[in-house]
Amino acid sequence: MSTEVCGTSRIVGCRFSLYPMSDRFVDIILGAIQEADTSKVWTETGDVSTCVRGRLEHVFDVMKAIYLHAAKTGEHVVFSGTFSIGCPGDSAGDVYMSEDAVRMNEDIVSSIRIEGAAEYALYALGEPEYMKKIANVVDIAKEDGSYGGGIHYATRLEGDVHTIFKTLEQSFEVTQESVSHVVMTVTLSCNSPSNKKQGKAE
Amino acid sequence: MSTEVCGTSRIVGCRFSLYPMSDRFVDIILGAIQEADTSKVWTETGDVSTCVRGRLEHVFDVMKAIYLHAAKTGEHVVFSGTFSIGCPGDSAGDVYMSEDAVRMNEDIVSSIRIEGAAEYALYALGEPEYMKKIANVVDIAKEDGSYGGGIHYATRLEGDVHTIFKTLEQSFEVTQESVSHVVMTVTLSCNSPSNKKQGKAE
Repeated sequence: MSTEVCGTSRIVGCRFSLYPMSDRFVDIILGAIQEADTSKVWTETGDVSTCVRGRLEHVFDVMKAIYLHAAKTGEHVVFSGTFSIGCPGDSAGDVYMSEDAVRMNEDIVSSIRIEGAAEYALYALGEPEYMKKIANVVDIAKEDGSYGGGIHYATRLEGDVHTIFKTLEQSFEVTQESVSHVVMTVTLSCNSPSNKKQGKAE
Repeated sequence: MSTEVCGTSRIVGCRFSLYPMSDRFVDIILGAIQEADTSKVWTETGDVSTCVRGRLEHVFDVMKAIYLHAAKTGEHVVFSGTFSIGCPGDSAGDVYMSEDAVRMNEDIVSSIRIEGAAEYALYALGEPEYMKKIANVVDIAKEDGSYGGGIHYATRLEGDVHTIFKTLEQSFEVTQESVSHVVMTVTLSCNSPSNKKQGKAE
């Protein structure tokens, strides 16, 4: 059964929303989604959230691109999303799994450097020893230099948005190698007036 | 060990953010938090999110009040949060567990009627049969009349914000009666320009 397999040959999804705290929110959201190349993922947009599904690297590539295109406006913009893999019954959009591994947005967004702060939580479903399954993931953030400490119900990340996404993607990828169903919630904020650390990087 | 117990005598937490899509976002967020009576919960506000912890009924009471105070401004406002109970290591703030069960905000906000749309997901951690543990929860939404259908990685709720919160609270409460560690993610939107169903009720 596909829901009991582990590894990266499985479909990854992210249900997310973009929140620009601005009267121009509609233009910023639509602009960011249009600017990103989503040709290698399945997408569906609703009134509450958008769902992106496909290969692991493309889902993260598209999420980062959409966020950076919104964040470069200078407005206070938050990304809030749930990444998921191995959810029982997940199958539609499997056709996108045959895409190659070349990321469509990396080159274009690599020059956009913005500092942000994130909070994420990782859940290994169906595992009696679920805490042990994620115990070492925090080392990834520490190695990346993005670790911002543990808080109630989440772990904090800080720094360049590219580094934050690198930490998130690797944490998710490593966990799903040994866990069939993994869920990761992420809240990523930049240009917040309440934190001087969030803003343009050098 | 407290982390292996079930039932409502345990501390509940919600890490959440409020996103008013408006240039006035700072005033709306601070105004909503100030207007709500948070005397029976432990709170901590950071630059990415706010954490509220206490008895189950007070956490839901405060969350609904904060959201409604923000939503009544008429701006497009989203609540995004993760409710949690039984998280291993969760203990600080236990002092608030001795509060009585009288909700501090219900009377004040009961007259604020706003239509919204929500997406939620419920996770039973540490349970090999985790899907069975939540299989019947959807009936709560159906009975409340708030059920809006299943979508990838979430369930949709629609209708009056009071009804949506009632469904969320009951779904969470019922699940934690037989599961030690329960997590529920919620995204709740109102006054969205992309959905005519979201707005003033009646």
